[in-house]
Amino acid sequence: MSKRSGFLRLGLFVYPSGHHIAAWRHPDTAANAGISFDYYRNVASIAEAAKLDLLFLADGAGARSDNDEVLSRTAHSYVAQFEPVTLLSALAVVTQRIGLVATVSSSFNEPFHVARKFASLDHLSGGRAGYNLVTSANDLEARNFNRDEHDSHAARYERAEEFAQVVSGLWDSWDGDAFLYDKQEGRFFDPARRHVLDHKGRHFSVRGPLNVPRSPQGRPVTVQAGSSEAGKELAAKSADVVFTAQQTVDEAADFYRDIKERAVRYGRDPDHVKILPGIFPVVGRTRAEAQDKFEALQALIHPAIGLNLISGGWTGIDLSAYDLDGPLPDLPPGNGSQSRQHLLAELARRENLTIRQLYLRVAGARGHLQVVGTPADIADALEERFETFGADGFNIMPPTFPGGLTDFVELVLPELRRRGLARSEYDGPTLRANLGLPEPAPVRPGDRTPSP
Amino acid sequence: MSKRSGFLRLGLFVYPSGHHIAAWRHPDTAANAGISFDYYRNVASIAEAAKLDLLFLADGAGARSDNDEVLSRTAHSYVAQFEPVTLLSALAVVTQRIGLVATVSSSFNEPFHVARKFASLDHLSGGRAGYNLVTSANDLEARNFNRDEHDSHAARYERAEEFAQVVSGLWDSWDGDAFLYDKQEGRFFDPARRHVLDHKGRHFSVRGPLNVPRSPQGRPVTVQAGSSEAGKELAAKSADVVFTAQQTVDEAADFYRDIKERAVRYGRDPDHVKILPGIFPVVGRTRAEAQDKFEALQALIHPAIGLNLISGGWTGIDLSAYDLDGPLPDLPPGNGSQSRQHLLAELARRENLTIRQLYLRVAGARGHLQVVGTPADIADALEERFETFGADGFNIMPPTFPGGLTDFVELVLPELRRRGLARSEYDGPTLRANLGLPEPAPVRPGDRTPSP
Repeated sequence: MSKRSGFLRLGLFVYPSGHHIAAWRHPDTAANAGISFDYYRNVASIAEAAKLDLLFLADGAGARSDNDEVLSRTAHSYVAQFEPVTLLSALAVVTQRIGLVATVSSSFNEPFHVARKFASLDHLSGGRAGYNLVTSANDLEARNFNRDEHDSHAARYERAEEFAQVVSGLWDSWDGDAFLYDKQEGRFFDPARRHVLDHKGRHFSVRGPLNVPRSPQGRPVTVQAGSSEAGKELAAKSADVVFTAQQTVDEAADFYRDIKERAVRYGRDPDHVKILPGIFPVVGRTRAEAQDKFEALQALIHPAIGLNLISGGWTGIDLSAYDLDGPLPDLPPGNGSQSRQHLLAELARRENLTIRQLYLRVAGARGHLQVVGTPADIADALEERFETFGADGFNIMPPTFPGGLTDFVELVLPELRRRGLARSEYDGPTLRANLGLPEPAPVRPGDRTPSP
Repeated sequence: MSKRSGFLRLGLFVYPSGHHIAAWRHPDTAANAGISFDYYRNVASIAEAAKLDLLFLADGAGARSDNDEVLSRTAHSYVAQFEPVTLLSALAVVTQRIGLVATVSSSFNEPFHVARKFASLDHLSGGRAGYNLVTSANDLEARNFNRDEHDSHAARYERAEEFAQVVSGLWDSWDGDAFLYDKQEGRFFDPARRHVLDHKGRHFSVRGPLNVPRSPQGRPVTVQAGSSEAGKELAAKSADVVFTAQQTVDEAADFYRDIKERAVRYGRDPDHVKILPGIFPVVGRTRAEAQDKFEALQALIHPAIGLNLISGGWTGIDLSAYDLDGPLPDLPPGNGSQSRQHLLAELARRENLTIRQLYLRVAGARGHLQVVGTPADIADALEERFETFGADGFNIMPPTFPGGLTDFVELVLPELRRRGLARSEYDGPTLRANLGLPEPAPVRPGDRTPSP
């Protein structure tokens, strides 16, 4: 097989204490990580020394469970931690090169505020900001924002698409050279280089212009993470980076080809949509050591937490009435994440898993690719996905922080470098430069296609 | 006169380049200050070395003018600068003791997001966050948020009052000792120490709880700045600090007594509402030097900018049809800030000013107390307001940054210290400790008065 050229794009998905659901109970983690700036500063420093492309923060505007017994036993589910944009703004000051990407829900935010915050973060960080636009599928979040339940899947994506369009348009409010700072003539900026968006659509009416100058990256990087039909369309139209969860090599290649082909249909260069599946690596010097590390974490999962992982939060379906040691029942389409529900059902069917086995199976990687093994095993898995065009890189999800991250950095990354798959230096000062994404050409309001 | 005991509370109102409307044109300022983190870091460092209580940032979600000729000649009007909460989060990392206060509009925000961001900032800064809750009176801002015009004055304040109630309630979501971090038992927090707000009011339906632990100050400091009847009521009910603009000693004392009496009627300790009028100090070693500094700035005001100051932005009334060198006409109540309109009309009447004289008169201090003089003159003015119970301290508005700030710090502050009016060391690690405000006792959902 002829080798595919270029480096893997590597994001670090930071999660308090670690991605394993029981990571906070591990003796080597800080249970208060989610609210410790020292913890995040340390993780960012390790990731930057390793020349990873970006730090990524997920988000939820409220806890994702209403069950006290479940919730009080987990550090996940967004029960209590820093708000991501304030956290990334603080991290911008103590890092120099690594990208800073936070998740934003299009369901409960205003595009003007979001465009403004991320443009501001892009200035603060010298061009390292990105936002991951998601839709919210949780009633408990909706009830923090004047609603009884979240919107239907279709309505959420319709809103998200218009949201992305408005945010991108606001980022084009100013030409890069609009500010004259001419003290002598008393001219602060050139009015001809300021552009009023005047967006009027179905969900948003936003005049603009943004009150932040054009940011160092032109526009902050746009990430999208949904893998449903609507999610793929949105990604193909407007994402610079796509985060995804794919179990098998074939599924990954199908997804990859699908997104790239859609991007071409929208007139885009397929190289300008980078596809980064998540990977949950449990690294040992031997396979036995890796397996031991994994088993030690699995043993810390409380049953109440395991069941909740596959019932309430993800699928929108209540599984508590079913036998834990029986098969996963056929599920009607829930109002939750449809791509996630499909993925779980497929996994249970393929591996013939009981409900309990299913939750143990996904408790670590939460549907993402999980590799428990030696540095070579993990490098093999990443290389295979890359070579078979299933990925342009990966979003690394260490089981614990900082231990799982230092395992990856000290053991796997040198192996990837030996294979020519990971770089040793940053390519440039901005996140776009490091991801191999060009600075976007501004679109002027008159050039836009009319709103729906 | 028996001396009033205690120190002045001193905030620093930071404005890009300076508070004088033409500050950006001054040879000693950086015209790009609004988007320069180095500028803010330097200002914060000077203020912290001087042991000032807090940095304060105003805000607008969009430029406040639609007139290209006016807008392109000003660095004010929120035309293009950092978003305040991202900026303060970054400053939290490079400061240790100074308070960090940003303005938030209740008109275009969701209380859950606001409670969350400021609780997060309070954690990031070790207990130094505050928010200044305002209502938005500008149509251009409204049009960035799906509206054609802003709400009426009464509706804005009704919403603001409920907004403050929800934010404060969300900050009480968790007991200070709610997080057990019990790895052995697998218990992350104690469900009995987590409180669901379940607010259902006229403007907001917000379930909660907040997904940030109780913050170092218990609740971030709440500032309010409106001086209308509705604004004073809101301040008396819920503010820890009141920013205000008062021209005369008598007006200041009346306002001060009014707020403190209202606070007592709401069952509050009047010492727990700190009143900080703005002061615009132009400091010289001699009065002539101070006057020269001021005239040099006044000479930089473009006429288009001066007129706009008193017509569009503040009063909601268009004055362009009137003779610039004639008297200010009787103004019908506009839909803008009523307290500001009243203040301008009173000032013009008292000093018999033409429209042009009025704009030159307020171009510096924008309605706040303006003192052009020696360090002793400025200390005299501050001491008089303090001794006559017109102020608990001041919000310092230097005409230029950093020059006007270093003038205050190097010349006026030593004089205030000699008089026993300013401290030489911080009192404690939190903003509340330095302002002499107690940590608030949490209110449990069941204890609250029912929503309207």
